[in-house]
Amino acid sequence: MTRDDIPTPALLLDLDRFERNLERMAAHVRRAGKRLRPHAKTHRCPEIAKRQVAAGALGVACAKLGEAEVMAGAGVRGLLITTEVVTPGGIRRLLRLAAEAPDTLVVVDNPENVADLGREAAAEGVTLGVLVDVDVGNRRTGIQSGPPAVALARAVAGQRALRFHGLQGYAGHCAHVVGWEARREASRAALAPLMETRRLCEGAGLAVDIVAGGSTGTWDIDVELPGLTELQAGSYCVMDLEYRRIGGRTGAALTDFEMALTVIATVVSVPTADRAMVDAGLKAFSTDKPFPPEPVERPGLEYAFAGDEHGRLTITDPARAPRLGERIEFFPPHCDPTVNLYDRIYALRGEKVEAVWDVAARGRSD
Amino acid sequence: MTRDDIPTPALLLDLDRFERNLERMAAHVRRAGKRLRPHAKTHRCPEIAKRQVAAGALGVACAKLGEAEVMAGAGVRGLLITTEVVTPGGIRRLLRLAAEAPDTLVVVDNPENVADLGREAAAEGVTLGVLVDVDVGNRRTGIQSGPPAVALARAVAGQRALRFHGLQGYAGHCAHVVGWEARREASRAALAPLMETRRLCEGAGLAVDIVAGGSTGTWDIDVELPGLTELQAGSYCVMDLEYRRIGGRTGAALTDFEMALTVIATVVSVPTADRAMVDAGLKAFSTDKPFPPEPVERPGLEYAFAGDEHGRLTITDPARAPRLGERIEFFPPHCDPTVNLYDRIYALRGEKVEAVWDVAARGRSD
Repeated sequence: MTRDDIPTPALLLDLDRFERNLERMAAHVRRAGKRLRPHAKTHRCPEIAKRQVAAGALGVACAKLGEAEVMAGAGVRGLLITTEVVTPGGIRRLLRLAAEAPDTLVVVDNPENVADLGREAAAEGVTLGVLVDVDVGNRRTGIQSGPPAVALARAVAGQRALRFHGLQGYAGHCAHVVGWEARREASRAALAPLMETRRLCEGAGLAVDIVAGGSTGTWDIDVELPGLTELQAGSYCVMDLEYRRIGGRTGAALTDFEMALTVIATVVSVPTADRAMVDAGLKAFSTDKPFPPEPVERPGLEYAFAGDEHGRLTITDPARAPRLGERIEFFPPHCDPTVNLYDRIYALRGEKVEAVWDVAARGRSD
Repeated sequence: MTRDDIPTPALLLDLDRFERNLERMAAHVRRAGKRLRPHAKTHRCPEIAKRQVAAGALGVACAKLGEAEVMAGAGVRGLLITTEVVTPGGIRRLLRLAAEAPDTLVVVDNPENVADLGREAAAEGVTLGVLVDVDVGNRRTGIQSGPPAVALARAVAGQRALRFHGLQGYAGHCAHVVGWEARREASRAALAPLMETRRLCEGAGLAVDIVAGGSTGTWDIDVELPGLTELQAGSYCVMDLEYRRIGGRTGAALTDFEMALTVIATVVSVPTADRAMVDAGLKAFSTDKPFPPEPVERPGLEYAFAGDEHGRLTITDPARAPRLGERIEFFPPHCDPTVNLYDRIYALRGEKVEAVWDVAARGRSD
């Protein structure tokens, strides 16, 4: 099977680019003396997770318990669940997962939740590894840094069936700050209270093995912090337009990682000289960003969403007008929600489909 | 199983509301002397399609061949594929489908495509029903109305293996015009050339059995046109915030159909007095509209997207602050791309889960 045989719309991964992205990040964290637990929410694909682990990652971070269950079922270990698990049903599932994959870690930001986890884990005879989730200004989950976080860490350590391993501080609000210097300043400011919380924990006699954070946008920034032990960048393995636009250390585009992910579509209608329609719309691409997909190496065409199943190409250069039935690839605006629309990834070596990987945790936001 | 047992985030359907929506539309088209072929792209769910047919629909419209293959495989007939099928591989699949479900219809907007379909259908010994797709101002697919459309209809009729059945004119640009009178005016203007094309076809000796069009927004507008034979409204069966906002014949909200579809989420973090986080974000709701999901019967809370897996609730009334672990439902902004994120629909009768339906054509945009 080759690229031309794939029914469209479909998700393609350029394996050469993807592998270089994995190698580049692996070499970087090794050099920096850090570890890597890449975020699997980007790809939801055990085959990719396994390749990240083979390249040296500790395991993968999972946004949700359901995602982690799929990864564990596929044999991936070293899982960190980065969203709190607070319901009785969720806690039961979490403890089953921890019994199967004992190095699984979960985050907490609430003392009630710590008490629930501690009680249920003890009742099940399971020991559960825990990180305290600290809000570093992202205004999402996470307890306040400093004394409240230390008190929560102490509560974790006080539970016989829980093991306090350290802290998570995800500075999502810094990941896409445009311009490397501005991003560095933002991330430094955000993570300073996390570093201080680490010191306070240690001062209180609580050993901190893990301080997890970072993103693809701050991959070469956060490693400067001695107190950070591991990165949880996700998008670096496939990249997307949003990350490319934030700029790198030396240029207006972030080119440290290569654009490995595309959506291939077919021109299904060329109704006028200035318009062609492709079979990829709201159900083929992420729609959460204020910019559209970008045709790959096709100057003279501009994409706009045109409903669930269509994209409208405005033909700005008539000499380059597409033909009916022609196949065109696009870079997606945002990789994570784009991948989540597809059941499989076509992994290409040049023109050849080398493998078809299940997006096995697709839809597993539970 | 009851509503409270469903792992979140999950897609819920209120069966009482859903059934009233089906009945209301069925009674309406009967009264108007029209037929109904509701658009299955809304739900991608054979169980819903079967209930629409049981309520009197001719079959269902499918946005893509892949969607139609799933519907046919589940035993649904009366399929209309509303996007052109132009590739050799697609045409082979289409002819297999037409062999299995001979009343399947496909649209065309291009003479090359008509020649390809005619040649391949003849070679396979299959007769394929065809509608000419007319651009009624939606600027998507569709040939120009009037003589170009008539010429294409003649080309279809000239192919031994194709049957010309009529016209499709989807006025998507009118569906969400706010205000009933303005919408009526827009839809009338858009569909006038379609009606004229019908007359021209008939004048040229081409019998027109079917003129398909309309949307949930124009459900009680387009039936006024004697030349329109069938509606292809989709969203009416479940509704969404976008359609509710367009206004009805007598009020500022479209209340002709009931809001039957919700996403249920769990509060996983209450980090501050003015903020609670739910486990439903970009991967749980459509993100293509400029307004967010709306909490159902929960005044004092405002939702904002906060990443792939989180929604941020701003607590505007501290007396109504949600508890950790509490479950909250939301109306999605746009039903079609929301449903496409889920593998199943929990169909509720009151609090009881009466059935769990597969969104079997989820992801089948091919």
